[in-house]
Amino acid sequence: MKGNLFVISGPSGAGKGTICKAYMEKHPETYLSVSATTRKPREGEREGVSYYFLTEEEFRSLIAKDEFLEHAVYCGNYYGTPRNKVTEQLEAGRDVILEIESDGAMQVRSHFPEGIFIFVCPPSLDELERRLVGRGSESASEVAARLVKARSEFARAQKYNYILINDSVDAAVERLEAIIAAEKCYMPKNIEFIDKEFLK
Amino acid sequence: MKGNLFVISGPSGAGKGTICKAYMEKHPETYLSVSATTRKPREGEREGVSYYFLTEEEFRSLIAKDEFLEHAVYCGNYYGTPRNKVTEQLEAGRDVILEIESDGAMQVRSHFPEGIFIFVCPPSLDELERRLVGRGSESASEVAARLVKARSEFARAQKYNYILINDSVDAAVERLEAIIAAEKCYMPKNIEFIDKEFLK
Repeated sequence: MKGNLFVISGPSGAGKGTICKAYMEKHPETYLSVSATTRKPREGEREGVSYYFLTEEEFRSLIAKDEFLEHAVYCGNYYGTPRNKVTEQLEAGRDVILEIESDGAMQVRSHFPEGIFIFVCPPSLDELERRLVGRGSESASEVAARLVKARSEFARAQKYNYILINDSVDAAVERLEAIIAAEKCYMPKNIEFIDKEFLK
Repeated sequence: MKGNLFVISGPSGAGKGTICKAYMEKHPETYLSVSATTRKPREGEREGVSYYFLTEEEFRSLIAKDEFLEHAVYCGNYYGTPRNKVTEQLEAGRDVILEIESDGAMQVRSHFPEGIFIFVCPPSLDELERRLVGRGSESASEVAARLVKARSEFARAQKYNYILINDSVDAAVERLEAIIAAEKCYMPKNIEFIDKEFLK
């Protein structure tokens, strides 16, 4: 593969969506993976941009053909990352970003271990609580449930290649830029060039 | 260790010295390791800046105490990297750069495998030849000898973590900045923070 696959995950409230959005605005040459789903399109959602909208039959058939890098059922609908869309972009030399929940990230890891797994982390537990409460959209018990879930996600942080601490969006995006640029210099990505150019 | 050790090596003519110098000008907070030597100081050379100047007896005593990360004899003089100077800086949280020949880099790797090894590489064999000839200071047979030596160094490139292609100094310095910033996000460097902050 010529491009790199970056899988960006982390607990709810860590800010992974904000970071990916800000990164994509600066780097439109990167491909942000679009998920497939069986849920109905909402007002304004566009096929191939918001999601690939599939019937349940289509979705199940793709699962049977191992065509998802990861998939899950949420509120009765299927969601998943189509493998061929990702590999097409990688083969064309584009870097691909996948922003997904940590269960999905671990599924991708088993299918695609050469991916680069980045765990987005809030700067402190207090700050995570503030962000979850600050959303205002969730009850105290929902916030508490998200904090319990976050704890189980922190316990999996060691399965990632990088930890991206989101103390400020600008700083976090700069760190993500550094990780993506550094990975292009990673030895195994360049050893073929050395063999061909200097050792043939 | 709180800082990271970056060992920068590569064949003669790849431009490792130029890259390190340009990086240090932008990042004076980084510590560029100073070698020890038994050769006599030249005009203008300063103790602890150009080199640590040692007697042969002092140097041999430090070798016996395993106080060098690497050392070698060149033209009858000892040269080496004092371990304690490097570890002091790392403990203080500073990143350390070591710019050395590839034999030395491989010695450091055996003493300090947690170092990050970066192989500086010219963009092409033709360009390497041009750079070696362009120096004007070397005879045709010296250039030929350096090219033979370079070949044996390229064959060891796979022992490095990163390959830094030096097509332009500015671009190469930016890549080095990315590698150094990305390594701060490397999971094992951050997992203790996660344990303490989120899982205690």
